Amino acid sequence: VLLYYFDLAGVAVFAASGVLAARERDLDLLGVIVVAAITAIGGGTLRDLLLDRHPIFWVTDSWYLVVIIASALLTVAYVRVWPPPGATLLVADALGLALFALSGAQLAEAAQCPPLIVVLMGTMTGVTGGVLRDVITAQVPLILRREIYATAAIAGVAVYLALQALGVPRASAFWVGMTVVVALRLLAMRRGLHLPVFRKS
Amino acid sequence: VLLYYFDLAGVAVFAASGVLAARERDLDLLGVIVVAAITAIGGGTLRDLLLDRHPIFWVTDSWYLVVIIASALLTVAYVRVWPPPGATLLVADALGLALFALSGAQLAEAAQCPPLIVVLMGTMTGVTGGVLRDVITAQVPLILRREIYATAAIAGVAVYLALQALGVPRASAFWVGMTVVVALRLLAMRRGLHLPVFRKS
Amino acid sequence: VLLYYFDLAGVAVFAASGVLAARERDLDLLGVIVVAAITAIGGGTLRDLLLDRHPIFWVTDSWYLVVIIASALLTVAYVRVWPPPGATLLVADALGLALFALSGAQLAEAAQCPPLIVVLMGTMTGVTGGVLRDVITAQVPLILRREIYATAAIAGVAVYLALQALGVPRASAFWVGMTVVVALRLLAMRRGLHLPVFRKS
Repeated sequence: VLLYYFDLAGVAVFAASGVLAARERDLDLLGVIVVAAITAIGGGTLRDLLLDRHPIFWVTDSWYLVVIIASALLTVAYVRVWPPPGATLLVADALGLALFALSGAQLAEAAQCPPLIVVLMGTMTGVTGGVLRDVITAQVPLILRREIYATAAIAGVAVYLALQALGVPRASAFWVGMTVVVALRLLAMRRGLHLPVFRKS
Repeated sequence: VLLYYFDLAGVAVFAASGVLAARERDLDLLGVIVVAAITAIGGGTLRDLLLDRHPIFWVTDSWYLVVIIASALLTVAYVRVWPPPGATLLVADALGLALFALSGAQLAEAAQCPPLIVVLMGTMTGVTGGVLRDVITAQVPLILRREIYATAAIAGVAVYLALQALGVPRASAFWVGMTVVVALRLLAMRRGLHLPVFRKS
Repeated sequence: VLLYYFDLAGVAVFAASGVLAARERDLDLLGVIVVAAITAIGGGTLRDLLLDRHPIFWVTDSWYLVVIIASALLTVAYVRVWPPPGATLLVADALGLALFALSGAQLAEAAQCPPLIVVLMGTMTGVTGGVLRDVITAQVPLILRREIYATAAIAGVAVYLALQALGVPRASAFWVGMTVVVALRLLAMRRGLHLPVFRKS
């Protein structure tokens, strides 16, 4: 049940990030909402397809789409009045990444996936929405930039699993894991943090 | 049953649009057919995956692939003899968009999806083939251009649902919805019509 | 059972190709592993989704991910010490293409797909990993280059089916089909071989 609200929060922030990305392009309002919707449902849809969970989370429950449209319209309106600082998209993206990475991990756990695969599933669920958003709006995918990105999701899910293995209750581990993802991303953005880069010398 | 023929018509016109897009690239004949096939089956495949309809429409029925190959070869041959005007790709795309948007909507309805989700499912079924085509052939996705695109699919499916709610029989509503999509797209192309654009001021 | 080892070999070589492609980008080590993993599992995941085979091959079996990580780390280490010739990526890609094309074909056969669809399924299974790799790392997809690519997969699967129709045992047909794919790709690369190109005159 808590996961349900996390998914709603995740689609809301990703929808906002989709709107902010679409702003760079000359889309009309419905086009913006379509981009917002694909960004918002992309990661969870992949997660449900891979884990064979049907119906897909948004397919029979209108609330997701209502939240997406509301979030998109609010973002459009907000942006008109207070042009947001450039980092707003990145913050929304960091929250969505964290929410979906942990929800993907938790559902993979519930499906009895081994730990390594829980990490991969969480990471893919977290990054897919943003990758779709960046591909659709023809921007360089965030995942390709130098700062810690997929790494933040991997670290957060790993911490979530490790804490549970140490006996920490799932709900607490969930919150800590999510905090790790967001904190790593925000730190990485602010300081330009990155791991040693693997480069063609 | 009628839906079966609409799907066949949809794959045929999308296959032709795939060939026309591939023409910009130095692909050999089999490569062209692969692009045509991915364009043609993309939208319906996503629809069937999301609605958990198995087998996927083209997986056990050779006719789809036969129609795709025939349509692709005819288009290749035709183009050699009568170089088509530049808008031919756009017209084929508009027909495919309309056919798949309405078929996606109808199947989502049959799966008991709420109306808002019927609209989203129709829109995604309609636009996916073209997005895949444009990404694979490395062109700016039609969906990103200024003229009404996703909006046409949304409007067509909305009209289809509204007419049914008003008591119009499904088959008639289907035809009207399809006509709305095609007409909006063609008008948008011809007049450069677009809704007010959401832009970074 | 043999197919299991082929899939492991396929993910290993595609993972290596993912690392080599990621080298062009400033990704950190975990980012490189994510690209390697997506490249490695992409084709087989699409295959399993389309054929409704659950659980998806890598979702409950950690070995695939272990092999991917091992292959990626070995490739990273190797590349540091002996910078590989430029064609290494292409050779790894050719092997992955062949292994997944034939495995996709064999599973489509087992699912009673008609021959034409076995060919399409094999081709899509073979090319998807490489397409995802090239899209994620923002390179021109190999499938768009002039040399024989999708055509090699089509030819290999067609030979595999034809040999079986002539009474050749499946295992032998499998090996011959795979050899055809690799040989065609390597020849095409070395000699710049390509079929007549369909071009906008």
